[in-house]
Amino acid sequence: MLLPEGVVIDTITGTVSPSTSSYVKRVSELRGIYRDAAALDDFVSCNGDVVAYEVIDYRKPESDLAFGTTIMSPGKIGDEYFMTRGHFHVRRDCVELYYTQVGHGTLLLESRDGEVRTVDMKPGVCAFIPPDWAHRSVNTGAGKLIFVWVCAADAGHEYGGILERGMRRFVVERDGRAELVPHPKYPA
Amino acid sequence: MLLPEGVVIDTITGTVSPSTSSYVKRVSELRGIYRDAAALDDFVSCNGDVVAYEVIDYRKPESDLAFGTTIMSPGKIGDEYFMTRGHFHVRRDCVELYYTQVGHGTLLLESRDGEVRTVDMKPGVCAFIPPDWAHRSVNTGAGKLIFVWVCAADAGHEYGGILERGMRRFVVERDGRAELVPHPKYPA
Repeated sequence: MLLPEGVVIDTITGTVSPSTSSYVKRVSELRGIYRDAAALDDFVSCNGDVVAYEVIDYRKPESDLAFGTTIMSPGKIGDEYFMTRGHFHVRRDCVELYYTQVGHGTLLLESRDGEVRTVDMKPGVCAFIPPDWAHRSVNTGAGKLIFVWVCAADAGHEYGGILERGMRRFVVERDGRAELVPHPKYPA
Repeated sequence: MLLPEGVVIDTITGTVSPSTSSYVKRVSELRGIYRDAAALDDFVSCNGDVVAYEVIDYRKPESDLAFGTTIMSPGKIGDEYFMTRGHFHVRRDCVELYYTQVGHGTLLLESRDGEVRTVDMKPGVCAFIPPDWAHRSVNTGAGKLIFVWVCAADAGHEYGGILERGMRRFVVERDGRAELVPHPKYPA
């Protein structure tokens, strides 16, 4: 039988105790999501193959909800900020919540028919991600971006489309500020 | 179509902006959940019919998740701390998360077969409430207790059993500290 539990979310480091699993994504594993491949090679040459982000899960068998944290390092590949791969949910009726704890970012969202929206990520803002909107978080701040996520345990991740064709906007730094620029493959 | 939205959770006051609904429970409406009815009358005579707690919802049609905040005033009825009514979920497969933002409390839980557990509520602790455990939050602190809750949108609230027979433990103040005492109707 599942028992009640107090799960400690460290709002400075983003660790989850106890957690059930975790993974990290290093910069080299994200080749292909950045438009400037040479800049990625340069970054790794200069800085090493650093952790771009870490995801920590609390998933229990028989729980209809899963939650956890995502801990994103600050950084840029060329003029593009560090970002997650981005995904739709396999179950197209599932929403997700991203509740920012630390840092500053842009949540980039794209509907199936190509509408693009953003939500400002900052402490105290809980982003509501509607069913069937792809979502990618982008760390536009100088420090870590840490958020708590919650979704149905069986929502599933559909990465394929976003990884292959990219999202319709890039989030880049221009004059020290985050700005959206259109993907050349798509009409603006 | 549901659109993405940044929902601001004020971690000082517990307000949710935008929200979709809210309700308050005043002390007089909670008659029956406290063991000392005379103490409740005395409390209202002295302090007025104050708000014991407020619940603010963010519920969207077509969303499989609901979330919001609960904002609990500090106070005691006799030696019992302010508490919520407590509920099971109608859908017995639904978990709930209570993520404390401000204050200090005790989450009192009871399984269908009468096992009692508690989880300490304090900032940074996300309480995992398993399927089919009744749960009641108790504000044992000197100030407000504020937490963010998340559950399936159709989890539903089943109040009846808890309201009629009470939970198996009371949370009372003894020598300035919170302590659990058994309900006389149940074997300890």
